[in-house]
Amino acid sequence: MSSEEISNNRKMARQNGIVQPLLTDLYQITMAYAYWKSGKVDDVAVFDLFFRTNPFHGEFTIFAGLEECLKFLENFHYSDSDIEYLRQTLPDNIEPEFFAYLKDLTCRDVKLSAIEEGSVVFPRVPLLRVEGPLIITQLLETTLLTLVNFASLMATNAARYRMVAGKNVSLLEFGLRRAQGPDGGLSASKYAYIGGFDGTSNVLAGKMFDIPVKGTHAHSFVTSFSSLADAGCGRLPHATTRAPRDLPALAAAWRRRVSAVIDISTDEASDGELAALISYAIAFPTGFLALVDTYDVKRYNFQGLTTRHQPPPDSTGYNSNCGTNGSRPNSPSIHSTYGCSTVERTLRSGLLNFCAVALALNDCGYRAVGIRIDSGDLAYLSVLARETFEQVGQAFDLPWFNTLTIVASNDINEETILSLNEQGHKIDCFGIGTHLVTCQRQPALGCVYKLVEINGQPRIKLSQDVGKVTIPGHKEAYRLFGADGHALIDLLQRSSETPPQVGQKVLCRHPFQESKRAYVIPSKVESLFRVCWKDGKIQVPLKPLSEVRQRVQESLRTLRQDIKRNLNPTPYKVAVSDDLYSFIHDLWLQNAPIGELS
Amino acid sequence: MSSEEISNNRKMARQNGIVQPLLTDLYQITMAYAYWKSGKVDDVAVFDLFFRTNPFHGEFTIFAGLEECLKFLENFHYSDSDIEYLRQTLPDNIEPEFFAYLKDLTCRDVKLSAIEEGSVVFPRVPLLRVEGPLIITQLLETTLLTLVNFASLMATNAARYRMVAGKNVSLLEFGLRRAQGPDGGLSASKYAYIGGFDGTSNVLAGKMFDIPVKGTHAHSFVTSFSSLADAGCGRLPHATTRAPRDLPALAAAWRRRVSAVIDISTDEASDGELAALISYAIAFPTGFLALVDTYDVKRYNFQGLTTRHQPPPDSTGYNSNCGTNGSRPNSPSIHSTYGCSTVERTLRSGLLNFCAVALALNDCGYRAVGIRIDSGDLAYLSVLARETFEQVGQAFDLPWFNTLTIVASNDINEETILSLNEQGHKIDCFGIGTHLVTCQRQPALGCVYKLVEINGQPRIKLSQDVGKVTIPGHKEAYRLFGADGHALIDLLQRSSETPPQVGQKVLCRHPFQESKRAYVIPSKVESLFRVCWKDGKIQVPLKPLSEVRQRVQESLRTLRQDIKRNLNPTPYKVAVSDDLYSFIHDLWLQNAPIGELS
Repeated sequence: MSSEEISNNRKMARQNGIVQPLLTDLYQITMAYAYWKSGKVDDVAVFDLFFRTNPFHGEFTIFAGLEECLKFLENFHYSDSDIEYLRQTLPDNIEPEFFAYLKDLTCRDVKLSAIEEGSVVFPRVPLLRVEGPLIITQLLETTLLTLVNFASLMATNAARYRMVAGKNVSLLEFGLRRAQGPDGGLSASKYAYIGGFDGTSNVLAGKMFDIPVKGTHAHSFVTSFSSLADAGCGRLPHATTRAPRDLPALAAAWRRRVSAVIDISTDEASDGELAALISYAIAFPTGFLALVDTYDVKRYNFQGLTTRHQPPPDSTGYNSNCGTNGSRPNSPSIHSTYGCSTVERTLRSGLLNFCAVALALNDCGYRAVGIRIDSGDLAYLSVLARETFEQVGQAFDLPWFNTLTIVASNDINEETILSLNEQGHKIDCFGIGTHLVTCQRQPALGCVYKLVEINGQPRIKLSQDVGKVTIPGHKEAYRLFGADGHALIDLLQRSSETPPQVGQKVLCRHPFQESKRAYVIPSKVESLFRVCWKDGKIQVPLKPLSEVRQRVQESLRTLRQDIKRNLNPTPYKVAVSDDLYSFIHDLWLQNAPIGELS
Repeated sequence: MSSEEISNNRKMARQNGIVQPLLTDLYQITMAYAYWKSGKVDDVAVFDLFFRTNPFHGEFTIFAGLEECLKFLENFHYSDSDIEYLRQTLPDNIEPEFFAYLKDLTCRDVKLSAIEEGSVVFPRVPLLRVEGPLIITQLLETTLLTLVNFASLMATNAARYRMVAGKNVSLLEFGLRRAQGPDGGLSASKYAYIGGFDGTSNVLAGKMFDIPVKGTHAHSFVTSFSSLADAGCGRLPHATTRAPRDLPALAAAWRRRVSAVIDISTDEASDGELAALISYAIAFPTGFLALVDTYDVKRYNFQGLTTRHQPPPDSTGYNSNCGTNGSRPNSPSIHSTYGCSTVERTLRSGLLNFCAVALALNDCGYRAVGIRIDSGDLAYLSVLARETFEQVGQAFDLPWFNTLTIVASNDINEETILSLNEQGHKIDCFGIGTHLVTCQRQPALGCVYKLVEINGQPRIKLSQDVGKVTIPGHKEAYRLFGADGHALIDLLQRSSETPPQVGQKVLCRHPFQESKRAYVIPSKVESLFRVCWKDGKIQVPLKPLSEVRQRVQESLRTLRQDIKRNLNPTPYKVAVSDDLYSFIHDLWLQNAPIGELS
């Protein structure tokens, strides 16, 4: 796309995203009125937006959603119709001047500082620090939370999939149909890409966010063809000579030859499937990637055989239950053919037909791309497919056949991939849907937005649960790095303190546990907050998604491996300065009077 | 709102919903091209949209999302910019005539039949039956699934909360900040309302869908006030005489009197909280509902006491761990005051201040609405609050004090409510967020869209997993009712069969288990499909959400209680006619050749 088209599409994206000031909880507006009514119009507040626990039993989170927050601030404005709706919704006694006040309200007096989008972030360290008049900063709460929570959760989920899949495997987001509504699907595509996915099946997301879109065909495409005759005339011009070739005839001939090589009878293969693949190849001769498991039950019969199918987990050395892959491996299968192994039968029709069409395409000067498998034991089937490609490549002296792409889909999650890795799968690309886009393991990130200072006075929210105590006051955040380039610790300080210096000893304290202290001598110090919105303007360049995506991988590389690992990761440390420690605990004492023994 | 305003807002809602034909998987478009290229432009298909398993371990589902599907069909049209994007995204060799074909494509030749929105529905019975040209019906797949899946999941989740809460408790949706993006939040509000919630905190959802919006204030409102002086001048005109009254002075005086009645010292209560509640009451004298647990740790101290807090589960007869309410009950609490029970201390400040302000408001001719509790042992605290209200009401001869509303929020889910019910809570209203809007227990409904007929020929998708075998052909669906008005069974028939008749014996068969058969004599027969879209027009009236919401409750009433219960519900039966049974199994045999013994 040209940069103008990209910009138009992003503009469309912005207009389409329903991020307007009424996308909030009513209590923000009732509080605004109560503040306004009690003369707190000039009060100045500082709010921190942060989370308390990393998602997915992990020890890191990817921060995302910042650009959307900035655009929200930029466009913050109640329309006449919004004001009219509020007038009708709030009680009759609201003073009319309040609506005039709302009508003129913008974010020009708000200052927003934030960590860079795409960075790894940790509990308690504010992602956003929002300063300005109490009323407007309070009014921003819900919308900012909505924009950061899901974006960061999705980006983190995607980054975790990327880590377990490794960098040599492609990851595609296929989740639209299971996403939480249309825009849930768009957000999922966008933030999966940022988190490290390579593309999406969601065409609108591709258009709006300039993300690569991918996809071939579904089972219904195959089942809509009944016989070879359905392939039509089947002429395909040769890639270079442009001479028309009869693809159905070529494919039928190749099918007989391949049948002998890979020991699968042409009787076992579906003619409708062959017709479907031929038609697909004629339409996409340069992009022939075929779904090959439509007729996986071709040899199962129904003639009174009631043997319950037993999967052959060990006959092949591969376990047919690949991880937590849904209930399929254990669900009842019926009507098994005696003595016929499911996994061996699966793909027989599809692989034979695919190879036949790929070889026919080769006669026409085109190289097939590969196959997709959407059911069964993905580790075993991928190995079987790879072996078949090697056999065929060798038989017909076509070494590139070995490198055909194998795409796997069907209810894949992080654990499935780990299990497939252990089993030595031969998959080049995963298509991931439900588990990715719904963040099934933890469908919400619990970011909160807490008042930490008002009119220069710090505010602390105490709680019986120390995990919920907030860190008061206007603060700065630093990341201290060791000599090997890894991040060592995040340090929160009062804004009045001198920033930590490279090569100088810094006392880092656990915010609540007196005895947990450590000296750190940083080799590099990164100040985490940047002013992103001030004086009514966005203060930082808005980067293309691809750069934010790159930032995620760079930021992850600064984390030690043990912090990122899937099983029992080491917690990354977040500390406060000695000064901030004393400040918190003095304030805590002031606010928590002495108890009684009774 | 006037009906014109409602209609404008719904129009806005429609424009804002990003339901355009590019909101789909790329493979729908590549398949369309392959169909087009292989001459299948005039092929006619029938697709069924259905799910295979009820969500949330339940035995029913609420069907929702139909209206959005119909609007999508109505507006189906590729814009010039869509076509341009596709031209750039698809391979170079795509014939230009295909884009012209897409440009003119609409849903005028599609016929969509559906079950009524808001009905209870069951596995395998199609929610939508889509008939028409193969290409356009295939192109609708992803978007229809996206629109039905989340809508039905949310409506079902909401209906389940409604059932466990009972009809005398109000339910409010508070989930926007944890929803899956902005539109995820809007869809959640809309379908929670349809499923039986009474309102939402989401203002934009209120405006767009005419749903009641609710909300008062947050903890940050309370913590932004430090002392009584912050309440400002505090004048409130009397409700009838309009004479200005000094609310802070009245509240302070009442606080001393209430303090004696409920045995809570005024020293224990926060002055900042009192100032906040007074300010809120002045702003909303007719809607005074106050959050009362901000200072729940007032009496906890920090002077070197390291006793780990032990919650007092049995001292009160109420278990402090109310169900599966997150990890809070077991998380470490620190700095407990010796011998001081948490749950007794919680609310002391808030309840005292609330009663003081409520009595002061009463002096001014206003009745307070109630309180919200957002932490702690909700069952116990609600009982404590109710007892306090009764004590105060009695002491000052104000019987209405007994009926003040108690709202509870904080990570509530279905199990929490069941547990609170067992504990005899005194809560009038639940505010429910994360668990409701993310459908945490099962964040996706697995609707699928399957080809069942092409050019008059039935299609069956076989699978080793019998649960995934599709029921082929063009079918009708009927619900048969017993004499007591309860639904007995859903029956699928071939469209060529005579519909079942009232009073006549019908043989109902399990679709796959030969021996499971039953005769049913229906007292009422309901034909489930209605033609909703035909000849390019919506064929049914689009009802206001409130009517769809009513339909949900009516439809649920036709289900026996044991099918709806939370624990081990009885499955509702879905059957096929004898004719359809034979049809399925003949087709199955044709498609599954005889196996080999080897």
